[in-house]
Amino acid sequence: MINEVTQEQKNIDAFLAANSDKKVVVVQGLGFVGAVMSIVVANSDANEYAVIGVDLPNRKPVIDTLNNGEFPIHSTDAKVYEYFENARKRNTFYATSDNYAYTKADVVIVDINLDVAKEVGVDKKLEGYSVNMDGFKAAMHTIASRCKEDVLILVETTVPPGTSQKIVRPIFEEEFEKRGLAPTFKIGHSYERVMPGPGYVDSIKNFYRVFSGINEESADAVEKFLHTIITTDEYPLTRLGNTNATEMSKVLENSFRAMNIAFIQEWTEFAESAGVNLYEVVNAIRMRPTHQNIMRPGLGVGGYCLTKDPLLASWASQELFDSITLTQSEKAVSINDRMPLHTYKTITKHFGADLYGKKVLILGVSYLQNVGDTRYTPVELLYDKLEADGTEIVLHDPFVPQWVEKDMMIDGGDDAFDGAYDAVIIGTPHDIYVKDGKLDSFLSKSDNLVVFDSHGVIGDELRKKHTNHEFKIIGRGDV
Amino acid sequence: MINEVTQEQKNIDAFLAANSDKKVVVVQGLGFVGAVMSIVVANSDANEYAVIGVDLPNRKPVIDTLNNGEFPIHSTDAKVYEYFENARKRNTFYATSDNYAYTKADVVIVDINLDVAKEVGVDKKLEGYSVNMDGFKAAMHTIASRCKEDVLILVETTVPPGTSQKIVRPIFEEEFEKRGLAPTFKIGHSYERVMPGPGYVDSIKNFYRVFSGINEESADAVEKFLHTIITTDEYPLTRLGNTNATEMSKVLENSFRAMNIAFIQEWTEFAESAGVNLYEVVNAIRMRPTHQNIMRPGLGVGGYCLTKDPLLASWASQELFDSITLTQSEKAVSINDRMPLHTYKTITKHFGADLYGKKVLILGVSYLQNVGDTRYTPVELLYDKLEADGTEIVLHDPFVPQWVEKDMMIDGGDDAFDGAYDAVIIGTPHDIYVKDGKLDSFLSKSDNLVVFDSHGVIGDELRKKHTNHEFKIIGRGDV
Repeated sequence: MINEVTQEQKNIDAFLAANSDKKVVVVQGLGFVGAVMSIVVANSDANEYAVIGVDLPNRKPVIDTLNNGEFPIHSTDAKVYEYFENARKRNTFYATSDNYAYTKADVVIVDINLDVAKEVGVDKKLEGYSVNMDGFKAAMHTIASRCKEDVLILVETTVPPGTSQKIVRPIFEEEFEKRGLAPTFKIGHSYERVMPGPGYVDSIKNFYRVFSGINEESADAVEKFLHTIITTDEYPLTRLGNTNATEMSKVLENSFRAMNIAFIQEWTEFAESAGVNLYEVVNAIRMRPTHQNIMRPGLGVGGYCLTKDPLLASWASQELFDSITLTQSEKAVSINDRMPLHTYKTITKHFGADLYGKKVLILGVSYLQNVGDTRYTPVELLYDKLEADGTEIVLHDPFVPQWVEKDMMIDGGDDAFDGAYDAVIIGTPHDIYVKDGKLDSFLSKSDNLVVFDSHGVIGDELRKKHTNHEFKIIGRGDV
Repeated sequence: MINEVTQEQKNIDAFLAANSDKKVVVVQGLGFVGAVMSIVVANSDANEYAVIGVDLPNRKPVIDTLNNGEFPIHSTDAKVYEYFENARKRNTFYATSDNYAYTKADVVIVDINLDVAKEVGVDKKLEGYSVNMDGFKAAMHTIASRCKEDVLILVETTVPPGTSQKIVRPIFEEEFEKRGLAPTFKIGHSYERVMPGPGYVDSIKNFYRVFSGINEESADAVEKFLHTIITTDEYPLTRLGNTNATEMSKVLENSFRAMNIAFIQEWTEFAESAGVNLYEVVNAIRMRPTHQNIMRPGLGVGGYCLTKDPLLASWASQELFDSITLTQSEKAVSINDRMPLHTYKTITKHFGADLYGKKVLILGVSYLQNVGDTRYTPVELLYDKLEADGTEIVLHDPFVPQWVEKDMMIDGGDDAFDGAYDAVIIGTPHDIYVKDGKLDSFLSKSDNLVVFDSHGVIGDELRKKHTNHEFKIIGRGDV
């Protein structure tokens, strides 16, 4: 083992020797954010950074993939591959699991995950939750025990508000004291607003950023660094008063959205009882600028952020600041987690029984339109309910060759459309299904089919064209 | 009495004889909406309507005021008086309490109130609520028992979704059957989006409208009528599928706002615990188009709509459609009703005790900036709490000469600024206080003063200028 480590240290030293004119940026965590953040920094306009991406030893496959010249995340954004290729040409990016990298860093960007553990009952009923900071704390110790004295730590992880001040800073003070050093480190927080999808790179490079530091010197250092990475002429930076503020800003953004989705979900059920097409109503309301952010009914909420950030916030309020429970925000998660049950119940009600033995095609598995991200996809609960009933389910999603969380391969081609089904459910409103005509041509050769449009994407034109088929459209007043 | 009624009928006949070339529009209810709606219709571009405003006999003072050439509602919108004057010149408006008017109407516009009765505990804690439809039903019987056979009933009142179909229509069917008539009436629903204030008339005439009818013929009639009243070239009408939809749209709009205010109130308390200036955070978040409707912290919620519409909706869902409780919407009202307690508690905490014997100036009494509307103003709960503590309170509001709900006269001049106070609370962020400098000049001659900026309107400039005074700004991280 000692030999292996030494060899890896030599690799790192060689990489840095080839970049001796550059500052060293280490990105901790090579997931959805860290991987792209790494290559954006490695493509800085002035070519001033050598970037080392560090992840845990159990993520060796990802590290090897990166070093072998392949980007490990499938993306529809061509810029991702372009940036990655260019970083390789420049030789400004290297991936490793060796903590030795931290000893060389001028800047460490923290992009590791911080999860909420939900306690759920039947049908994902939220019964409690907890936030375990142990992994995050360990990661901070890892850096603090070996970093350079004047390092800048830039936390990008979505953390419970209060984390930089109450958790990160004390760890650095403790480790620096152990090392006999004055607390000369700088700690800042700046959250990304990464959207996987066609604007993946732009969502980091060309988008507004909010930042802060634990003191003026730290905030200044973050500001200077971000100016070299982000197109700040077009997307000016916003400096907030303290790290609590930026940390709160991130979870507030996501809680706002989660809560507005939960709100409209309750109205969806009311609207259906009253025979009201809520899509039509929401479109009318959105004409008012003060109401443009009202949400549309859908199947459910997925992804890494909206499903947990309101809980991170409420946890922080109670545990780190001895303040109130954010009841509206917690309730939002609880409503959203169960949203897919509504589609399930509507289908079941339509058939007058569960779907035992029926054959159902689910179009779209990911949680987001035109993107292959399946983390916490709401399709999962729908799938689980149908499967438990003994329904024969066929999944289709061109963006998801493999549903990692279920360890299932998924067909993304046209074979799925050759079968005969009792019902088709739109799980994710990918453009190919309605906008680009896939559903249209499928309906032309189908009969006695129930279509559940969980997202209200099927317009009047398509409905009129296929009047010989049976359509059932959730939330459009005809269920 | 019979003679009096007959005289009034003669008055009505004379008014209509002078307008024999015109169609007759009766507006039922001469409150905030009905009064302005009346004069907008009386000013139709083609001068095609004679308008009779009808209100209950106990509203005789308002009726007399109108017929004597004075508009009964104080407004900062010059157009209100211009329109009223022009209607008088045209002789196209008359007010009465005589139901005889309904026998003459081609169109009846329903603009009466429909209230929610809240059951409240200590400090306005919402413990229950009920909707009493009796008054509304009686008003419908009044019309249906005497209207013309082909009348168009246009309901503008904010009603529980389902009302036109489940309550209005059956009453008309019943009364027409009693009268031996076929059900030839037309019933439509179109809600206004009236904003009292400088755009009072425009909020009716120059704004988007949503409409519907209980059948195609009714919806067509509403559409035709609205085209003659509203600038539909610029603000196109939106036709929805049924009256449930438009009725729902109105209360959904207001619930959306109420809920977003309640949401941010919880975060305000969290932010203050964490020393975060939430205004700064919200401004940063609003840079994202998807988050522009996030609200700012404030003193509380007032007015006639946001304080009750979410409850009307939830009541309708449960009582008229046997559907779900709108929990997020009900909770919003419950949080908002108590919002002013937060300002009260912050003040009390600052002084370390209640404000017994202290002298406090409250700037602004109405519920809305630059408007004199005091209906359900949140200042009331703040006032009541301070008064119960034995605080000496001085109120100031240039838009509210009389606080009707409290039967108090209010000083709107500069005398209030001559006193010496322990604290000044911004109750309503009227422009005169901060933007137009009233507070600035007051602070120049004050000392040892605590200023509670419940709305975050005091900027850095004013704060820096008066550093010799003590400022306490709620929600800005320095409380």
